Amino acid sequence: MIITSETNPKIKLLLKLNTSKYRKENGLFIVEGKHLVTEARNKGVLVEAYSIEEKDDYITLTKELMKKVSNTDTLVTEIGLCKMVEADSLSNKILVLDGVQDPGNMGALMRSAKAFNFNTIILGVGCVDIYNDKVIRASQGAIFKLNFRHENLVEFLPKLTDYKVYGTNVVNGKPLDEVEREEKMAIVLGNEGNGISDQVNNIINTNIYIPMDNTESLNVSVAGSIIMYQLRQD
Amino acid sequence: MIITSETNPKIKLLLKLNTSKYRKENGLFIVEGKHLVTEARNKGVLVEAYSIEEKDDYITLTKELMKKVSNTDTLVTEIGLCKMVEADSLSNKILVLDGVQDPGNMGALMRSAKAFNFNTIILGVGCVDIYNDKVIRASQGAIFKLNFRHENLVEFLPKLTDYKVYGTNVVNGKPLDEVEREEKMAIVLGNEGNGISDQVNNIINTNIYIPMDNTESLNVSVAGSIIMYQLRQD
Repeated sequence: MIITSETNPKIKLLLKLNTSKYRKENGLFIVEGKHLVTEARNKGVLVEAYSIEEKDDYITLTKELMKKVSNTDTLVTEIGLCKMVEADSLSNKILVLDGVQDPGNMGALMRSAKAFNFNTIILGVGCVDIYNDKVIRASQGAIFKLNFRHENLVEFLPKLTDYKVYGTNVVNGKPLDEVEREEKMAIVLGNEGNGISDQVNNIINTNIYIPMDNTESLNVSVAGSIIMYQLRQD
Repeated sequence: MIITSETNPKIKLLLKLNTSKYRKENGLFIVEGKHLVTEARNKGVLVEAYSIEEKDDYITLTKELMKKVSNTDTLVTEIGLCKMVEADSLSNKILVLDGVQDPGNMGALMRSAKAFNFNTIILGVGCVDIYNDKVIRASQGAIFKLNFRHENLVEFLPKLTDYKVYGTNVVNGKPLDEVEREEKMAIVLGNEGNGISDQVNNIINTNIYIPMDNTESLNVSVAGSIIMYQLRQD
């Protein structure tokens, strides 16, 4: 099958998936590049694959159409239409994000979460859409090696009764060096500018702080990664 | 003094400082917002300050001109013209960057360097211009609390005879947990896509690697920050 026209319904769908709203409504998103299409297929979330070459299992697009539907300046040779999947179970180590908004930070946190075996990420209200092309690019493929769940954190956190839940405020904090690795742990990180929201903060008993020159603050993906490194499951 | 015209030489200078080339040639850069102007003054690098209000020690700009010379979408009330200064001495802990190109990564590394007392940053060829507005914003003021030096790393690194110099390649690496804190240490980080360049790599004897799921890799600002955290000077 070769698509040559912009008015083809498949192309219309791909173009609409550039907005977060449409992605959410349809439970679909796009990945760009051979590597990510392969990762999506391995994870079983690939719905359709598109290439500028005629290949088995691919729908062929003209180069012009591929340029239109992709978000990168250079020509990508293939893209994948993928379905969103919510995690049905939780890993022993969980990363909980309360309004992390920068795509670069979200992508970097995914890479670190995978590297240190925090395999489930819980996305609270106010987080950047993880199916945004910038997040997917920054995640370097980690997006397909983790499980995600979108939750209202005020309702979700109290259900984690068998997990040790740590916030990341400096007040009431325990220095990271003194926090023991436990089997089931959840680490909550807040927004870049405002930290963890008051509502969420109210239901967290213990905070971790990173020992440092206390006139400074760390980037959220850095802070979260240092904590995950220290508490990782080897 | 109130400037109302775009053709005023001071405005022309401010507008030209939006390009890295012009900044470099003139040794000048701009910071935006009251907080950074104050930090620049405290550090002694403020050449002139501009405000939309008439105040002592400030040159007044109309709101229209301020919008033109600033890089933020919202109206900033003041900006500072600053001079670049190269470090004349080196701190005991040094961060050496071989081609870190992403402004967000550079800014995050500055915050971590300050937090963990790596107070001198050596910038090799190929690094993003640290006086770029995105880097300055991402650094959250840390840019004025550190010292910087631009160096050719192939010439510079061999001179660090009294420092323990560590690269960050996985090959010939020592796990981070086993690296001892020493008084004088230099940590070399490489480019986002390509890591440390071959030329630089050839003159580094020992590498550090971060214990993790080895199918993964970390964002460079995350990796550098974890290492600085572990080797920090308390």
